[in-house]
Amino acid sequence: MLTDQYELTMVQAALASGAAGRRCVFEVFTRHLPAGRRYGVLAGTGRMLEGLEEFRFGGPEIDWLRARGIVDEPTLEFLTDYRFSGDIHGYAEGEVFMPDSPVLRVEASFAEACLLETYVLSVLNHDSAIASAASRMTVAAGDRPCVEMGSRRTQEFSAVAAARAAAVAGFSATSNLEAGRRWGLPTLGTAAHAFTLLHDSEEEAFEAQVRAFGPGTTLLVDTYDVETAVRRAASIAGPELGAVRLDSGDLVEQAGEVRALLDSLGNTGTRIIVSSDLDEHAIARLQSAPVDSYGVGTKLVTGGGSPTAAMVYKLVSRTDDDGAAVAVAKNAPGKSSVGGVKHPLRRLDETGRADAELIGVGAAPHLADRDTRELMVPLVRDGVIAAEHVGAAGVANAQRRHAASLAELPPAAKRLQHGDPVLPTIFS
Amino acid sequence: MLTDQYELTMVQAALASGAAGRRCVFEVFTRHLPAGRRYGVLAGTGRMLEGLEEFRFGGPEIDWLRARGIVDEPTLEFLTDYRFSGDIHGYAEGEVFMPDSPVLRVEASFAEACLLETYVLSVLNHDSAIASAASRMTVAAGDRPCVEMGSRRTQEFSAVAAARAAAVAGFSATSNLEAGRRWGLPTLGTAAHAFTLLHDSEEEAFEAQVRAFGPGTTLLVDTYDVETAVRRAASIAGPELGAVRLDSGDLVEQAGEVRALLDSLGNTGTRIIVSSDLDEHAIARLQSAPVDSYGVGTKLVTGGGSPTAAMVYKLVSRTDDDGAAVAVAKNAPGKSSVGGVKHPLRRLDETGRADAELIGVGAAPHLADRDTRELMVPLVRDGVIAAEHVGAAGVANAQRRHAASLAELPPAAKRLQHGDPVLPTIFS
Repeated sequence: MLTDQYELTMVQAALASGAAGRRCVFEVFTRHLPAGRRYGVLAGTGRMLEGLEEFRFGGPEIDWLRARGIVDEPTLEFLTDYRFSGDIHGYAEGEVFMPDSPVLRVEASFAEACLLETYVLSVLNHDSAIASAASRMTVAAGDRPCVEMGSRRTQEFSAVAAARAAAVAGFSATSNLEAGRRWGLPTLGTAAHAFTLLHDSEEEAFEAQVRAFGPGTTLLVDTYDVETAVRRAASIAGPELGAVRLDSGDLVEQAGEVRALLDSLGNTGTRIIVSSDLDEHAIARLQSAPVDSYGVGTKLVTGGGSPTAAMVYKLVSRTDDDGAAVAVAKNAPGKSSVGGVKHPLRRLDETGRADAELIGVGAAPHLADRDTRELMVPLVRDGVIAAEHVGAAGVANAQRRHAASLAELPPAAKRLQHGDPVLPTIFS
Repeated sequence: MLTDQYELTMVQAALASGAAGRRCVFEVFTRHLPAGRRYGVLAGTGRMLEGLEEFRFGGPEIDWLRARGIVDEPTLEFLTDYRFSGDIHGYAEGEVFMPDSPVLRVEASFAEACLLETYVLSVLNHDSAIASAASRMTVAAGDRPCVEMGSRRTQEFSAVAAARAAAVAGFSATSNLEAGRRWGLPTLGTAAHAFTLLHDSEEEAFEAQVRAFGPGTTLLVDTYDVETAVRRAASIAGPELGAVRLDSGDLVEQAGEVRALLDSLGNTGTRIIVSSDLDEHAIARLQSAPVDSYGVGTKLVTGGGSPTAAMVYKLVSRTDDDGAAVAVAKNAPGKSSVGGVKHPLRRLDETGRADAELIGVGAAPHLADRDTRELMVPLVRDGVIAAEHVGAAGVANAQRRHAASLAELPPAAKRLQHGDPVLPTIFS
């Protein structure tokens, strides 16, 4: 029932008109990247496939649809038996995409494929928006680990999905426990300001935390006065103190002061973790400061200003009464689309560097003797989901794919300033 | 498990230090409204309370926490038995809030209240962001109904929550079926461009839809040529045609042309529904055009540029070893907070118009003979949830509260331009 009413009413009307069984191809793509972004990152494919297994209409849902009179009995029968039995291909999760890249292709009867529109778009639009923002942050952070800690600034289930999407784009860990449990992601977290305020003094709070978790824990040092807190932390935990966390103030200046202070106290191995409304630009600025890792929250889970990837799900081909495929496209101003099944390839130059997104319409693109890389992989065949794309393995594969695809892009991809898509999309 | 790891580790350290049982008061507030917004709308309270019943740690979750070694056995025992048994007060759902308004107050032992931080913030931050954007749209639309249709542009469960939050702020219906089912919201939806493209001609598609749903249906008229489609729609459905939907192009100009064409064809009762990336400014511009209702998607579910309400959950009071309440506050630069339990009132002028948000710290505000309205209502007492705030009744009550609170604000609240919060927040 995670869907829009019009998908069910379209099924009813198509069952009645006889067109519901026409074999259809729907494609997912975006017409443009968010303003100034140089590439997008596809994420959510594995999560979408995991949910596809449970995309059904149960007894209570059917009863509600009947009581509301939303669709008729033949449609309710169809929905009761619904189970996706078609084929899905797509870019591998973690892959980089450009405007018009056909990141997903769903092939099934109209009725079966039509029902998935909202669900598929919800997952891919959200997770790709997060991964696209996350990738800029991990690029900015270089070798320093980024930790996802934005759960509180997004809806509670979006938080779980955001942690996963961040991992696809190179985040090292998350504070979100459910994401850790579902996909085996590393989780992190120690204490908030409330823990210090709960105790009669900062000293008692630090002692309690070190007693519970050992000196290797991370102490939050900005509840009252940072310098006092750092001295106190080093004194209580000793040279084994794992890390201190700074969550406010001018982090560049403060990180330098805290590093010097820690070193002077003999805590040369104690790391400095910073958080506090970081985005890729703040991270870039902090790269010159002695910071060991970044905690990122709000700006990550809200997609760095672009909370949706603006992908659409469009019918591009369907059979006619004789079973022959017909390319179709709408003609609405500003929203026209290209009919026909797309065959995407990434073109590579002689050094193996990507230099264009080639999209053949109705057939493979004309190559003229250039190196290319296949982008489409099979995800679902006759309703059976390919196992390597789901669960913890799916995330690990997506992380590898993302790292490899990013490394293959022209160096300009890693610039944080506004720019054009780093690869031209060429239809052929 | 919809929570951050640090909440569990804080419970462990507090259980060990003996502070876990201290009676605590946590408050939820935002330090600022999104840039230029004149008021915020609290939403999600009912949904948060519905989820509170299920906020537990089951066997598989406990096993996973143990296997990962995240917390120790005493903490796992506490979590196994966890059930919130404290008190919660808050602004009624749908109420308007200002910077520093204490929209929620959670009172319980530290361990019980601490665990709710991420969950409570996730729900309120998301739903309030949507409702705050939605309220500006329904204000702009005046008497014309707004329909929520943004499910595909946000995460699949956020979509369900967004439909509910939009309803709180005056949206008339949603395309999201699950939201309709959970909270009894009116649902709407007929057909997408794909339905037209599926058929051999637009004529066949319109005929199929009218056969299935009668002439009162809504036909989408911009797949190919709008004028041709409107003539075709009127010819097939006759004067009883319910509505036509425009989803692209310059909607102001097009709505006028389509209205004139419909009228000339005798379809004076056929309504015009517009959609296509509408926000409050686009709606305001369309108010002069002959449009009957607005379908709003992306801009609504992404919070109109502000996808989180930036609320925080802060410890403001806790008992000491003698059981006496101690006001507490942190001192971090730019993030300091006011210690002590807050007592908010909305001050009214002699005409009943709101003119200030008064916040007493530790006691009711000093009034000096002015009219005020109580803002805090009981939501949970000893772990028992007040029934009027949940389910369909909760949404209906929130809708009424929002309409009444909005009507009570100074007229400047309804201006769409950037401005300051419409009520000053006065601590006393």
